Amino acid sequence: MNSTLDRPLPSSSSPPPWDTIAQAFVGALGRDRVVQRREELLVYECDGLTSYRQRPALVVLPRSTAEVATAVQLCNRFQVPFVARGSGTGLSGGALPIEDSVLIVTARMGAILHVDLDNQRVVVQPGVINSWVTQAVGGAGFYYAPDPSSQIICSVGGNVAENSGGVHCLKYGVTTNHVLGVKVVLPDGSIADFGGMVPEMPGYDLTGLFVGSEGTLGIATEITLRILKVPEAVTVLLADFTSVEAAGAAVSGIISGGIIPAGIEMMDNFSINAVEDVVKTQCYPRDAAAILLVEIDGSTSETRMNSDRVEAICKANGARQITRAQDLGDRLTLWKGRKAAFAAMGKLSPDYYVQDGVIPRTQLPWVLQEIAALGEKHGYKVANVFHAGDGNLHPLILYDNGVPGALEQVEELGGEILKLCVKAGGSISGEHGIGSDKRCYMPEMFSPVDMATMAWVRQVFDPQGLANPTKIFPTPRTCGEAGQASTLLQFPQADVF
Amino acid sequence: MNSTLDRPLPSSSSPPPWDTIAQAFVGALGRDRVVQRREELLVYECDGLTSYRQRPALVVLPRSTAEVATAVQLCNRFQVPFVARGSGTGLSGGALPIEDSVLIVTARMGAILHVDLDNQRVVVQPGVINSWVTQAVGGAGFYYAPDPSSQIICSVGGNVAENSGGVHCLKYGVTTNHVLGVKVVLPDGSIADFGGMVPEMPGYDLTGLFVGSEGTLGIATEITLRILKVPEAVTVLLADFTSVEAAGAAVSGIISGGIIPAGIEMMDNFSINAVEDVVKTQCYPRDAAAILLVEIDGSTSETRMNSDRVEAICKANGARQITRAQDLGDRLTLWKGRKAAFAAMGKLSPDYYVQDGVIPRTQLPWVLQEIAALGEKHGYKVANVFHAGDGNLHPLILYDNGVPGALEQVEELGGEILKLCVKAGGSISGEHGIGSDKRCYMPEMFSPVDMATMAWVRQVFDPQGLANPTKIFPTPRTCGEAGQASTLLQFPQADVF
Repeated sequence: MNSTLDRPLPSSSSPPPWDTIAQAFVGALGRDRVVQRREELLVYECDGLTSYRQRPALVVLPRSTAEVATAVQLCNRFQVPFVARGSGTGLSGGALPIEDSVLIVTARMGAILHVDLDNQRVVVQPGVINSWVTQAVGGAGFYYAPDPSSQIICSVGGNVAENSGGVHCLKYGVTTNHVLGVKVVLPDGSIADFGGMVPEMPGYDLTGLFVGSEGTLGIATEITLRILKVPEAVTVLLADFTSVEAAGAAVSGIISGGIIPAGIEMMDNFSINAVEDVVKTQCYPRDAAAILLVEIDGSTSETRMNSDRVEAICKANGARQITRAQDLGDRLTLWKGRKAAFAAMGKLSPDYYVQDGVIPRTQLPWVLQEIAALGEKHGYKVANVFHAGDGNLHPLILYDNGVPGALEQVEELGGEILKLCVKAGGSISGEHGIGSDKRCYMPEMFSPVDMATMAWVRQVFDPQGLANPTKIFPTPRTCGEAGQASTLLQFPQADVF
Repeated sequence: MNSTLDRPLPSSSSPPPWDTIAQAFVGALGRDRVVQRREELLVYECDGLTSYRQRPALVVLPRSTAEVATAVQLCNRFQVPFVARGSGTGLSGGALPIEDSVLIVTARMGAILHVDLDNQRVVVQPGVINSWVTQAVGGAGFYYAPDPSSQIICSVGGNVAENSGGVHCLKYGVTTNHVLGVKVVLPDGSIADFGGMVPEMPGYDLTGLFVGSEGTLGIATEITLRILKVPEAVTVLLADFTSVEAAGAAVSGIISGGIIPAGIEMMDNFSINAVEDVVKTQCYPRDAAAILLVEIDGSTSETRMNSDRVEAICKANGARQITRAQDLGDRLTLWKGRKAAFAAMGKLSPDYYVQDGVIPRTQLPWVLQEIAALGEKHGYKVANVFHAGDGNLHPLILYDNGVPGALEQVEELGGEILKLCVKAGGSISGEHGIGSDKRCYMPEMFSPVDMATMAWVRQVFDPQGLANPTKIFPTPRTCGEAGQASTLLQFPQADVF
């Protein structure tokens, strides 16, 4: 194990040819851990953000902490950047390869290492798929709460990197609230343990710092998760409204009434009709301006009582009709349209672009109006299907990538929506991360001193700029003026970061 | 506003005389902001950890972010260390002055700056007393959850520095779970904003990093807190057991039954009798080996149902008798003994030393036996009154400071208890922080790479080592071999950190 204290300065000499580097990886890790054939590398050239593509020079598939450390040490020896990748489902380009980089794929690290039901902990390797955790402990009445919509395919390692959310994060919080510790291969190849089985360890909260750092502070190789007891009862309510304002007021009313549903989702009229055209659930009223789907869980009596209260609050705020689903079949029917909403858009429009921003809940009606106006200005339809309880918007911009210039226009519109979120007192990302997609908007939210503080933290973890460089931080090369504004210019390797 | 990027290396020249420095502070901030008379400085020479004392050279009492920044900039100009202090109630010496340092006291920064009930946020200055937050929003049906036992006197700024807990952190989490953002004067005097009104901001979680950093990464000057809706109902149950094992099993049974009480407190036989001797509550059975106090909150029906279930679980685990208090008067009676426990020890014994460690809940019976054995070995009585639900122990070692060498023996016993906590898979601090009291035990929990990673983070925030140096990190000067083991030796100013 190297010491993190032994930190050479960034080298300016060129690395050897990739054949030489590949040989060293094969020698250290074995042939079956290394992918180097051009056609095999193809599948790794993007993550869920498919509009950007870059083929990595080499892919490594380690199976243990020691193998990840070896891979990172080799990257250090050859001074080549590396990018960590789990299942590659991320939506902000966090796992997008960088030119002439090594992609370290944790997909083969799929072991559940330890289950401690008494202390409600599970220790997993990073390649474990999100839904496997619940499968492993479900029989004993436990589950893992964070549930991104990609949960049957996304990895826990990727969830940690992006601090992923999900439908239930209103009540249960996002990934960082469920990670108690991480074993990390630091950017220099040394191994550190942040946190552990006990919450709130003394010293700096490096676990919290690491979660959401998008592969820039190292690679998690073991993750200690908190699991929860499955609630006794679950109910889903569908409430329909004749105005978005009324639906927004109902959301505020529920929360300020002291009820914390597991989740509150909103769909606007366009999304409702898209879903009914394609999925034909026949549950969603086509003439509603907006519907809310409210999931309530807890003990049987609590769930019944809170359902009654949510129903009353929705009615007081003008809901026309309320459907309540208690058994699993009914619940799945009500959720079906929401879950299929993105796919439905895909059928209605050649392409769509999902944005991810956050606003204070109280700003919902105003912001939705502004989004509609921005869409009209740019000539694009924007559908809204989102986590209303958290104020976490997911505007879907419908477009045709076959039309020259359309992607650029849509990205501009997406950027204006992000600026609107910041103006409303919100954030440029709720749960998808910054990655390569949103780095140029970071100066919208953060002052030069804020950005510099983050950059210094990154610098101290990764003085050579090898761990997923070009992500999160705006640079003059990638963002022009926005990158200048971040003052990162003053770093020796600012343009790498 | 300086830039954090403009970082001179630590200077080795001596600062000017303190009279000159004091004049500069008076010139910049005004006479009423500066305390320099020897007899007035006396009250600032320790915090709640009264066994260590050190008079600061100067005390500054700023009233705004700008004044804190000015004070820190002056400390930078003169290259003198500074220590932040709130109310001075901390139990680990986090606010203990350092020789020849400036103590920056935030007590006069007592304004509640902004209340946003709709989004459940309150923005406060750091000198606001913990209980004032609830007072400010209680009329509207909200409260601030973290409730250290010193809550009527401790400050929110100090809570943030030490990541304070309380009786209700089992259900509601500790301070870090309720801080959404901080405005910080960094150690170089520049001002940064971490987090904000929206939870889970993108980029590194610097808010999470800052909370619990014990004044070593800067001084919080504005803090955005999350407030919660007051629960509809609260019940307290007192259950008595004929063995500590049975009480421990009941705790595990409650949690694994999927119930999360607001708090579960345990008192052992010695504590029960101490309390009954002094406070005479006449509620606590003197012949019980242990009692549990379980507070359950939520909706009326949920609270009733969970109380029934807790009662059944306690009985199934051998509870002899259960008392249930529903109205406020009965609840206060049941809590009275617990709240007075430390004071009762103070009446029974000339002095006591409160330890703070965490263990996995499942290890409770074994660890309590070992603590008793350690106490016997050293010849000291150890009482146990603690947050059982979190596994957060507070062993109270009774001793007489008048006996020469007693304090040293008690500190040694306290250290052995901490090592036992680590051996059980736990932690050397639950809610009191590391400060100057426990820094030498850090290598018991953290590997050299872990410690070095924290030290590098500190280094990057405070390259000159001026912000509360000598705290958290073990150094050869303060800890001998333990300090060596941390590898911090390799830092230029390791002995300052």
